[in-house]
This record gives sequence, C-alpha cells and structure tokens, in this order.
Amino acid sequence: MTDLALRPAAPADHAAIWSILQPVLRAGEAFALPRDWSREQALAYWFSPGHHVFVAEDAGMLRGSYYIRANQLGAGDHVANGAYATHPEARGRGIARAMGLHSFETARARGFTAMQFNLVVATNTHAVALWTSLGLREVGRLPGVFRHPAHGPVDALVMHRSL
Amino acid sequence: MTDLALRPAAPADHAAIWSILQPVLRAGEAFALPRDWSREQALAYWFSPGHHVFVAEDAGMLRGSYYIRANQLGAGDHVANGAYATHPEARGRGIARAMGLHSFETARARGFTAMQFNLVVATNTHAVALWTSLGLREVGRLPGVFRHPAHGPVDALVMHRSL
Repeated sequence: MTDLALRPAAPADHAAIWSILQPVLRAGEAFALPRDWSREQALAYWFSPGHHVFVAEDAGMLRGSYYIRANQLGAGDHVANGAYATHPEARGRGIARAMGLHSFETARARGFTAMQFNLVVATNTHAVALWTSLGLREVGRLPGVFRHPAHGPVDALVMHRSL
Repeated sequence: MTDLALRPAAPADHAAIWSILQPVLRAGEAFALPRDWSREQALAYWFSPGHHVFVAEDAGMLRGSYYIRANQLGAGDHVANGAYATHPEARGRGIARAMGLHSFETARARGFTAMQFNLVVATNTHAVALWTSLGLREVGRLPGVFRHPAHGPVDALVMHRSL
C-alpha cells in the first residue's frame, strides 16, 4: 500500500467513482441508499452540497472513495459523518483502513471533534471490525432498521469516536 | 384537549408554523438546527421534499406542528423519523403527546413499520419522558453530540419503537 495516495476528488474522477459505487449500491448490503440508482443519482448524492469527497489512488487507479460531512446542523455540527466505498477488486488491501484514517485527519482539520456513523449494518462484519480497530465504539444498536437482501431485516450499529 | 384537531399543513399555515418554530429554534435547546435561521430557511426545512407536515389546531389556533419522513433511503426506508414543535404558550396541555400519537398513525398508514428519533437531547427531560411513555426506548446514547446553550456539550439519545 506504499503507493496509495489520498486526495480530494476531481470532476475527472466521476467515472472511476461510479465504478466503485455501482457494485456497492447494486449489492445492497452496506448502504441505506436505493440499489437501483443511476450513475447520475449516485454521483449527485456522493457530491451533495456539504460533502467533502476524497479518493484513494493506487498506481494511477482509483480504488476507493469516501466523503465526510457534518452529521447534524446547528448545535450538532461539531460531529462529522462519513461514508466509504472500496472497489470490489481491491478489497483486503487496507484501502478502507487508509481512507478511514485519512478521513479522521480531514475531519480534525476542518474542526470536527468527533466522528459518528449512523448506520453500520450489523452483518457487515468487516466494517464493524475495521471501525472498532480504528477506535469507534458501538453507542447504539438499531433493531431491524436495514432490509438485507439475503438476511431480511437486520440490526445496524451507531458507532462513534472522538477525534 | 377535546377540541384539538390534527390535520395536514396548508400554505395558509406558514405564518402560524413559523410562530411555533421560531422560539424553539432561538432557544437552541431541542433541535440540531441553526438557531439563527430566518423564517424562509426554517419553513424550507420543515417543508423539505419527503416531509409530511401536520398541524395541531385548538379552537382555531395553531398550537403545534410536526413532520414525518423516511429516516433513511433504500433498505432503510421502512423506518420513519419525526420532529415536533409546540407553541411555548401551549405547553403542558398534551399537544405534543397528541401529535406523537397522530404521527404514529400517519406513519403506519404510509407503510412505515417503526419510528426512530436520531437526536433527543438528553437534557430535554420532558421529551425523553414523553417519548418513553409513548413506547419509544433508548437504543443509543450519543456522547456530547449537542452543544447546549446553558449546559455545554450534552448527550443525545437515539429512540426507537415499532409501529
């Protein structure tokens, strides 16, 4: 992973970001987002106003993307929220971990003092293990809030850490 | 409270709804929304796309308003979320309770199978007691995620009930 570069997303990255998001959306196992979203809908969401989007580039290939944003407005806007996607062909190589660590630094630099994930699907054990190893802890468990395509309604975790 | 009528909001209600939202926003003790929002900003938020807005009318006077919406998209869109505001001069008369019960029926009628509140400020003991009495339970506690104007950073609860 020594070649992995984390940098802000640029318009020229849109096609590569869609190639990362599309399989994650279609699988329907991780994001509470419509599985059938088009490229345009998915990119409009990923680049929503208030989202700060980054990409992970490995030897010239985009392998992951994440965004951070304020999780709430007003008196809650000191807490960041993020979402992360890794290309299916690049899993198991530490890319999500590198994006997670980079996102914490990005959030700190923008003045956020905590990171919160609102819906980590409990069956997504790789994600739960990754975030736990990066210092997030379960602060809530939401019963049956995610309709998993294989498992039916499953719980989701709310995870939090200070920055 | 025998005269209390719950009905969908109409454009003619905007001034009265602002008179209800304004003091709640300005106090900054309950909503994770900017305290300094203008009437236009607050109403644009309250009537956001996907929000179903209702009002509570007592003898011709609007005394409360609430909205429900889907809390998440895609595989999470069976869970509703709501927000509720009561006019300061009408508190302690069961209006929030009536809105809560009405919102559960509204959500059920729209096919939602659960209600989740993402950020109930822990110091808002009236709200916590009300929602608990209406069958919601604490499924998460978010540390210091709300900057209370008097108490500084305070916890918030995630509350959930099936419908």
